[in-house]
Amino acid sequence: MKALRIGIVGLGRGFMLTLPALRAHPRVEIAAAFDLRASPRAQFTREFGAKSYESLEGLLAADIDAVYIATPHELHATQAIAALGAGKHVLVEKPMAISVAECVAMEAAARRAGKLLLVGPSHGFDAPVRRAAELIASGGFGAVRQLTAMNFTDFMYRPRRPEELDSARGGGVVYSQAAHQIDVARRLVGRDVTFVRAVAGNWDSSRPSEGAYAAMMGFEGGAVASLTYSGYAHYDSDELVNWISELGREKDPEQYGDTRRALRNLEPATESAAKIRRAYGEDGASTSEPPAPYHEHFGFVLVSCERADLKLSPQGITLYGDEHREFLAIDPPSLPRVEVIDEFVEGALGLVQPIHDGRWGVKTVACCAALLESSRTGSEIAPTAMIIDTLEAVSV
Amino acid sequence: MKALRIGIVGLGRGFMLTLPALRAHPRVEIAAAFDLRASPRAQFTREFGAKSYESLEGLLAADIDAVYIATPHELHATQAIAALGAGKHVLVEKPMAISVAECVAMEAAARRAGKLLLVGPSHGFDAPVRRAAELIASGGFGAVRQLTAMNFTDFMYRPRRPEELDSARGGGVVYSQAAHQIDVARRLVGRDVTFVRAVAGNWDSSRPSEGAYAAMMGFEGGAVASLTYSGYAHYDSDELVNWISELGREKDPEQYGDTRRALRNLEPATESAAKIRRAYGEDGASTSEPPAPYHEHFGFVLVSCERADLKLSPQGITLYGDEHREFLAIDPPSLPRVEVIDEFVEGALGLVQPIHDGRWGVKTVACCAALLESSRTGSEIAPTAMIIDTLEAVSV
Ligand SMILES: NC(=O)c1ccc[n+]([C@@H]2O[C@H](COP(=O)([O-])OP(=O)(O)OC[C@H]3O[C@@H](n4cnc5c(N)ncnc54)[C@H](O)[C@@H]3O)[C@@H](O)[C@H]2O)c1
Ligand SMILES: NC(=O)c1ccc[n+]([C@@H]2O[C@H](COP(=O)([O-])OP(=O)(O)OC[C@H]3O[C@@H](n4cnc5c(N)ncnc54)[C@H](O)[C@@H]3O)[C@@H](O)[C@H]2O)c1
Repeated sequence: MKALRIGIVGLGRGFMLTLPALRAHPRVEIAAAFDLRASPRAQFTREFGAKSYESLEGLLAADIDAVYIATPHELHATQAIAALGAGKHVLVEKPMAISVAECVAMEAAARRAGKLLLVGPSHGFDAPVRRAAELIASGGFGAVRQLTAMNFTDFMYRPRRPEELDSARGGGVVYSQAAHQIDVARRLVGRDVTFVRAVAGNWDSSRPSEGAYAAMMGFEGGAVASLTYSGYAHYDSDELVNWISELGREKDPEQYGDTRRALRNLEPATESAAKIRRAYGEDGASTSEPPAPYHEHFGFVLVSCERADLKLSPQGITLYGDEHREFLAIDPPSLPRVEVIDEFVEGALGLVQPIHDGRWGVKTVACCAALLESSRTGSEIAPTAMIIDTLEAVSV
Repeated sequence: MKALRIGIVGLGRGFMLTLPALRAHPRVEIAAAFDLRASPRAQFTREFGAKSYESLEGLLAADIDAVYIATPHELHATQAIAALGAGKHVLVEKPMAISVAECVAMEAAARRAGKLLLVGPSHGFDAPVRRAAELIASGGFGAVRQLTAMNFTDFMYRPRRPEELDSARGGGVVYSQAAHQIDVARRLVGRDVTFVRAVAGNWDSSRPSEGAYAAMMGFEGGAVASLTYSGYAHYDSDELVNWISELGREKDPEQYGDTRRALRNLEPATESAAKIRRAYGEDGASTSEPPAPYHEHFGFVLVSCERADLKLSPQGITLYGDEHREFLAIDPPSLPRVEVIDEFVEGALGLVQPIHDGRWGVKTVACCAALLESSRTGSEIAPTAMIIDTLEAVSV
């Protein structure tokens, strides 16, 4: 028996990555879709024998219980609020939205509707993160005190839509990538963030948005996280996680420079088209690849508790205790991102209290906003204060 | 012809590490020594046919041009000022001293005496650091923007003197270890530090001093460094530098927990004695080991310039350019720490303008002090302001 009929909003790259888990989930029916482009709509109808729509209103009037929103960042808020208003549960891609005010409005809409608003997938859901968070929360290693996370990728040189390189529209690495790293850190530390001090960098005028950052985040209870990221396609930190890619596949260390070379060989006018070739229903992207053999990850992540360090990898967790080191293997994933769909389905059905709900999501976006604000002003920013300020502005 | 007759102050572990470079240097004569302990004095006299003294005054009255001070941190200032006052050049171990005020006084003494005050060895002298700094300074990669450094060691569980675990006396990892990491970062970025925001951790009440920290340092021109350190003997970041130890030797990854185990098997009352067994003239420490085959290092160090990342290793530098990656091998060191003695000798003889002089050293100690102060107050600290405040207090 299918428990949750889901309508898809946005048949792009994000949808592609979540599709295997959606399709395989025993309690999910992929019931309908909405996209502005005709070709993935046609492909969707062929593949799922389900109706596709040219408007959100059309989709929301269909017989569905929930939507999964995987459109460009800046559409998340409006579309989520409309779907919640129509009585649907909402799974919204990260980043939840591109301002704290939008997130607060989304969370309020969820509360009014009495429906679930879940933010994901993010790498905070990855099985090694969850397992490490549980180990830490069990308290056997003492308090968590320090977290070191570092990810160096080619994010800035993959083919992009214009808005993905436009800071005013949530472009650059902060909303897209820090959102992952912050989710990972928050999940592992398990406490609220008290301050963010950061320097974000915009180093390449041909890709003019924040492409790198260094951030320090303080947590209630005194733990501190150092988060470093560069999307400038130089060093590749996947070498620190056994040359396994973010998506859990083996990676060839010799393919250095491929992303930049491919971009250089692209006519600028065709970049958006190149991006869309990685989307659903396009030739470049098959949905029938075998599932990745390793867990997804977000680079180097090391957590220091009082009596042990834990290092995450796509295969498990290395536990560095006082006199003994141990590797806790985590069974390979059956499918990537099932954790997200599990949490969404079980949350929507009232079976579990989800972790990554709207309240969680607001806080992560507040950290992203604080990161940028700290970099702009050169001072420390309290993400909670940003949320409170927004609430006050809304209630006035 | 020997150009510089050097007197040694403190025949301990630090001296052991510098001895090979001192002994081999064509322009150095190891001319005399002072230590409170009789046994290394006797060994020194046997080994070098040179006189050893039971007091600093004795040593300073001897026929020497310079001293190398390798006594406990808290003695550095008084001894250096005395030696400068006696007209000797001074090479003082890191940390230069344990307060900004002490360093300012030392630097003033050097200026008054017209003698060289050099601070080292620190890992800022390591050949890969120097080479990377030169490459960066040449400007070919654009401005340096971000630096990520991380070192996870067993510092806190090696046998220690009481003062090494007493924060009030410069104990813990900040003065001993951050001094290295800050020197490395400052050397690579090549600009003054504008702020330090840090959280230092004191996690083990049986070793009650700062054993870990996470620090963010801003630089003039906008670069930012993320420095992470833990001396709690859990994760070992030497795995990120090809399992080569800080001192440039191969390391067995399977010896996990050895340092803690050895300490556990030690009677607390004998810990200082165990420490001294690693010093000069003691059975545990031979000065005739073959030289280390790799360069010394201070953990994982990655520098991001606008157009390239540079990753340091004990064998060289990996250059991650726009489309090409390249490994720049650096010839194995002839002897460890020769760079330090070269800079000292050539600086003392007026042949070069040394980098790591008293002015350099004050700034690094100010960063250490700022790190601790930031952790204590929860706010950002400008190390320059700490120096200026000290100067004002002195001139009042
Ligand atoms: N969690 C992850 O790992 C992950 C990975 C990729 C993308 N994402 C997220 O998914 C979202 C989409 O990014 P993407 O990379 O898939 O982009 P994309 O361009 O590949 O896909 C966006 C899709 O939305 C459609 N669309 C655009 N405007 C629309 C509108 N007004 N109404 C309906 N459909 C519209 C496009 O036609 C396209 O099919 C982003 O928020 C991104 O952060 C997340
Ligand atoms: N650069 C490096 O890599 C490095 C490595 C080790 C030590 N060091 C530095 O060297 C200094 C000494 O540390 P260590 O580990 O060698 O300690 P240690 O205890 O091994 O050596 C200290 C020596 O000083 C002598 N001493 C103590 N009090 C004295 C006094 N009042 N007058 C004269 N001699 C005295 C002791 O007898 C001993 O021989 C510290 O500042 C430390 O930071 C630097």
